[in-house]
Amino acid sequence: MADTNRQWRLAAYPVGMPKQSDWTLAEGPVPEPGPGEMLIRALYLDVAPYMRGRISPQKNYAAGVAPGDVMLGGAVGQVVASNSDRFRPGDVVVSDFGFGWQDYAVLGPEDVRAVDEEVAPLPCWLDVLGLNGLTAYFGLFEVGMAKLGDTVLVSAAAGSVGQIVGQLCRLAGCRPIAVTSTQAKLAACRELGFADGVAYREESDLCGAVARVCPRGVDVFFDNTAGPIHDAVLQNLAAHARVVICGTVSLAARFGEPDIGPRFLRHVLVARATMQGFLVLDYKSRYGVARERLAGWVREGALAQRFDIVEGLENTPAAFLRLLHGGNIGKQLVKL
Amino acid sequence: MADTNRQWRLAAYPVGMPKQSDWTLAEGPVPEPGPGEMLIRALYLDVAPYMRGRISPQKNYAAGVAPGDVMLGGAVGQVVASNSDRFRPGDVVVSDFGFGWQDYAVLGPEDVRAVDEEVAPLPCWLDVLGLNGLTAYFGLFEVGMAKLGDTVLVSAAAGSVGQIVGQLCRLAGCRPIAVTSTQAKLAACRELGFADGVAYREESDLCGAVARVCPRGVDVFFDNTAGPIHDAVLQNLAAHARVVICGTVSLAARFGEPDIGPRFLRHVLVARATMQGFLVLDYKSRYGVARERLAGWVREGALAQRFDIVEGLENTPAAFLRLLHGGNIGKQLVKL
Repeated sequence: MADTNRQWRLAAYPVGMPKQSDWTLAEGPVPEPGPGEMLIRALYLDVAPYMRGRISPQKNYAAGVAPGDVMLGGAVGQVVASNSDRFRPGDVVVSDFGFGWQDYAVLGPEDVRAVDEEVAPLPCWLDVLGLNGLTAYFGLFEVGMAKLGDTVLVSAAAGSVGQIVGQLCRLAGCRPIAVTSTQAKLAACRELGFADGVAYREESDLCGAVARVCPRGVDVFFDNTAGPIHDAVLQNLAAHARVVICGTVSLAARFGEPDIGPRFLRHVLVARATMQGFLVLDYKSRYGVARERLAGWVREGALAQRFDIVEGLENTPAAFLRLLHGGNIGKQLVKL
Repeated sequence: MADTNRQWRLAAYPVGMPKQSDWTLAEGPVPEPGPGEMLIRALYLDVAPYMRGRISPQKNYAAGVAPGDVMLGGAVGQVVASNSDRFRPGDVVVSDFGFGWQDYAVLGPEDVRAVDEEVAPLPCWLDVLGLNGLTAYFGLFEVGMAKLGDTVLVSAAAGSVGQIVGQLCRLAGCRPIAVTSTQAKLAACRELGFADGVAYREESDLCGAVARVCPRGVDVFFDNTAGPIHDAVLQNLAAHARVVICGTVSLAARFGEPDIGPRFLRHVLVARATMQGFLVLDYKSRYGVARERLAGWVREGALAQRFDIVEGLENTPAAFLRLLHGGNIGKQLVKL
């Protein structure tokens, strides 16, 4: 065990698109667990689009990271020392948010869940068996009310949530359509079961491209991006469409600035569409059942996982920036 | 009985805000009812904001009026001649849409409902006992899911639907907040039971004005306008707010043009708000129960009506334009 703990701390709220210098790498002593607590060493650190909202002074759904604080984030880690009777040294656990971008964290037993490598490899516990699986499941079925026969368009389809949504669609008899940046990512989406899709960087008429792959309109739009993709899909809604506002990653560079562009209230009215902002945290009381189902599908091999793994704590901000710029195919993680 | 039938026919699709010359007054013979049909003479003609969407080549939720056709619209009228065994000459009936801007129409018994003046005066049958009452009822409770204690903000609050929504809120223990153009209209809203409100033409900071009257945020936003009022309210949503997109009258002058302005997807996400396009026609199978309830509240004096009545068929386009420009206080009708 090392005797120092490296930590990425937020230097300042990013202005526009975050950049490497928005964080500084600090070193400190490895913390000591208090009564009932555990010392946990990171094996994999999470980076995810929601983190953009947490490093902004803008109002958000949860408290953010203040300049000077350790950057928040989930992790899969191994218990090094434990004052809890629920976990022993050597146990592998997953933390959804509270670990932070660091080598070691002290957490309580209520902050983590046990990881069972027999169910799925470690990275899956920050993906389909973590918050992203739950996000895909509740967003698609509870908010999107996806049902047999629906055309479901997913933006950021090659990302973690997008990939899971596409596969859940297949299991549910929906027709998943991917919107992603490049043909390489679109090919990855097709491999996972997406029926068709659009590589938006290669389209001059995005609205027409969506119409081409969704000739009967979009029944469920699982939106992870906002921006021009959102605009194109809003013009292609089927009657009674559901729009799940899950993420707004295309706004990452313009956080806090007004997002000026065309509005589609008339389209929402004519289609009698429902648009709903969605946070998986609101479904906490029902995580248990969803996790059991997701784990079952993983065991059956019905939910494939694609990962994009960067090595080394020192590369964590770079991995996050890569994600914001759309460089990843599959769930972006950092391996320590 | 006159021997000519005056008809307002659409001359051409309006460009931008409709104007008087978009219609022409034609005269023709009084039509003859066929087997099972009735000849009905108009007593009151309806003018309503939804008509803007019906005189446009833009995609809409229902077929529009083509240039040359008689302008569509509901009416309260008296049966003059009847080949139906369901209605007799002298009976008063109401048509929701199909009558048109004319002195006489031939309709079938399935196109009209019987009017009972003992329940409410004739104009009410085009207002609280017509589609507007149903729009307020289903929009507020089914789409908006308004419940005891909610703050409900209503745009175009001094219009027909707005007035009914405000009063239904009072009956349901909600706190109705009016947004309307002038202090005179706001005073009318207060008389009907609105708790507070904003006269938007007199506010330089509309977003701040909404915050002032809704200090804990807006739980239900019953939106009849779109545009800058919508923008201000979207920045003041309470967590889990519901936004009912009922009408877009502020876009009347820009129909078919892109509506460019700030977008609030981030606000929708952070508030986990639901925004839904709403058409009362989708609730047709449940009109019966709603009408019984509305008639009950009218009989009890719990739903007051304010009308703004123009006289003479020749003034029908002017009455409609008055409505689009926000000149009316209460339900705008034309009396023949």
